[in-house]
Amino acid sequence: MLATGMRRVTPSAIMELIKTTAGGDYLSFASGLPDPTLFPVEAVRAVADQVLSRDGAAALQYGPAEGYPPLRALVADLLRARGLAAAPEHLLITNGSQQALDLAARALLDPGAPVVIESPSYLAAIQAFDSYDARYLPLPLDEDGMQRDGLATALAAGPRLLYTLPNFQNPTGITLSAERRRRLAEAAARAGVPVLEDDAYHDLRYDGESLPTVCGLAANPHALYAGTFSKVIAPGLRVGYLWGAPALIERLAQLKQITDLHTGSLTQRIVHAFCLAGHLEPAIERFRSVYRRRRDALLAALAAELGDHATWTRPAGGMFVWVTLRPEIDAQELLTRALEAGVLFVPGGGFHPGGGGANTLRLTFVSLDEERIREGVKRLARLIRHPQAAR
Amino acid sequence: MLATGMRRVTPSAIMELIKTTAGGDYLSFASGLPDPTLFPVEAVRAVADQVLSRDGAAALQYGPAEGYPPLRALVADLLRARGLAAAPEHLLITNGSQQALDLAARALLDPGAPVVIESPSYLAAIQAFDSYDARYLPLPLDEDGMQRDGLATALAAGPRLLYTLPNFQNPTGITLSAERRRRLAEAAARAGVPVLEDDAYHDLRYDGESLPTVCGLAANPHALYAGTFSKVIAPGLRVGYLWGAPALIERLAQLKQITDLHTGSLTQRIVHAFCLAGHLEPAIERFRSVYRRRRDALLAALAAELGDHATWTRPAGGMFVWVTLRPEIDAQELLTRALEAGVLFVPGGGFHPGGGGANTLRLTFVSLDEERIREGVKRLARLIRHPQAAR
Repeated sequence: MLATGMRRVTPSAIMELIKTTAGGDYLSFASGLPDPTLFPVEAVRAVADQVLSRDGAAALQYGPAEGYPPLRALVADLLRARGLAAAPEHLLITNGSQQALDLAARALLDPGAPVVIESPSYLAAIQAFDSYDARYLPLPLDEDGMQRDGLATALAAGPRLLYTLPNFQNPTGITLSAERRRRLAEAAARAGVPVLEDDAYHDLRYDGESLPTVCGLAANPHALYAGTFSKVIAPGLRVGYLWGAPALIERLAQLKQITDLHTGSLTQRIVHAFCLAGHLEPAIERFRSVYRRRRDALLAALAAELGDHATWTRPAGGMFVWVTLRPEIDAQELLTRALEAGVLFVPGGGFHPGGGGANTLRLTFVSLDEERIREGVKRLARLIRHPQAAR
Repeated sequence: MLATGMRRVTPSAIMELIKTTAGGDYLSFASGLPDPTLFPVEAVRAVADQVLSRDGAAALQYGPAEGYPPLRALVADLLRARGLAAAPEHLLITNGSQQALDLAARALLDPGAPVVIESPSYLAAIQAFDSYDARYLPLPLDEDGMQRDGLATALAAGPRLLYTLPNFQNPTGITLSAERRRRLAEAAARAGVPVLEDDAYHDLRYDGESLPTVCGLAANPHALYAGTFSKVIAPGLRVGYLWGAPALIERLAQLKQITDLHTGSLTQRIVHAFCLAGHLEPAIERFRSVYRRRRDALLAALAAELGDHATWTRPAGGMFVWVTLRPEIDAQELLTRALEAGVLFVPGGGFHPGGGGANTLRLTFVSLDEERIREGVKRLARLIRHPQAAR
């Protein structure tokens, strides 16, 4: 009875792993769930109370599909600081950046449409593109991000979308270099290919200076930029945004209206009031300082335990480290043994739109404190170093 | 650059009307916006504070795609009272019932798929179906709802969906009779056609007893039932739900995850705590008693002013009265003159998936108090009675 598009809608391996292991006592490097003790609960409570006391009726009423106007203006301010020409009419407020990605794909992709994508890439974006029956033109990554070899060929194939996560990419933690950003932006603009830049981790930078956004580096009327408050306030609010040319945003807002009318009025006002009250910078600083220490702990533990047995990325921000094992080790099989040892991670295969990556895995460093990170890596290293003995 | 499906994604006439007239001083029968003075602001403020004080970290964290488990259980309880076999696994929590409709359509409709639909029907559902390039098999309404003539033929045409609003239908206010519900449920089940029952107005009943849900009247593994807290708590929270067989709900939850991961954790918990604290029944009673008086005022004003010039429905609940003018009067043209007279309504043409209805219009009675309802009808009646003089 289901529509053809449902063929490629399948359970998320990550979500299934979370379900299977729910309630169990695991050291989890798997899910990218932020540590909830870091959420600015008190500040959210205070601004929610303020919003409902001062402006309760409006906060509970229907609102415009495009989003709460003062929040659109506030996000425009944030994005100008990232080098984007942004006014309120460039912005659509969405239910987290996942909805921004899904709406962009729905607006741009016909069945079978070619999509240029980093390999590996963000699993839930691949799933969204899959649901519109996308065909992938995967480009591999090196330490400077999406490789340039193959880009010209891919752009010449008439893709309907180029999807990139330039900062601390999910799943690899890799950052696209300044030079490649410029070349990518220019090449896509020249080819008339819509860029979809996913910058969910922008503010979670632990080292170095912020790099220019791809969308800000070339005039491309079809460029879109997705961001979110999930990583810097809290994901349970489900407030993100999509930036683009006003004419394109207007069309996407029509789609948003059909999809769910608009993003929640109360949660949009909470996010707005939170930022206006000056809570955003301290919240970002708190996430950053804790995550930075955890990243350092994970990298140190990997060096101590797995120096000769694996290679891994050294992310300047974000939530993830990407590990490449010896070619003969299958990460899916390793996970079966890791579960018995009380450790969770996500095997890397599923992140590869073009297949491959059986000997790779993703580790998040945001869910566990340093001590548990060290203990988890120790257990994992034992399994990797002694594949047979650990059985 | 846009996907083929965007061809039929167009601005909502209602939303455009709201935008054009924003800030103006109008007596509005147009939008179906609830009167915000009726929202249970204080109760929402109290439970929001409670949720964030007791359970703040969890309320700000990611949650399961299916929804917050205690809210799924609570909605299951509500739906069992409506005659549906409902356990938590029958339920997906959505961003209002609009998202329930859109997800159902996305899961079921291939381009060109035939959809059996009442004519007229809910505009934003038509827009969602349009976006999946649906082809309509419209069935006209009489005072007992969707007419039986033509149903057998329509079901025999192999539709992929039958969409019905059995209670106080938007836009007509008409209720499907008990006898027709039974026949419709049985015929659809026999034909193996998925029913999508939209019961957004269920609790806004002002006269008579609740009728059984269509989905409860026949075993149909593809039947879906959409509901919402928008009409009985507040629409700005964006919390609704979709009921169906667990196997189908599981597939729809995969789609929901791709779309926006999950409905907001905080708002789901606010709705749950609101109901648990016993606020739901008093809130419903308040909406009901005020809206009942306004409906009575609108019907009385229509009888006093337009008795010989139009016919209209007498809804037992909901938000809307449907007016049929003399065939020579064009409601779109009437609206141009009504705007000058400071009155808004929605012309009926757009609600007709198969075209027609140029001499019909929709009036909501929930936005204005009785005195303003009377004044608005007076102004409107002047234009309808004297089409030339009013120019």
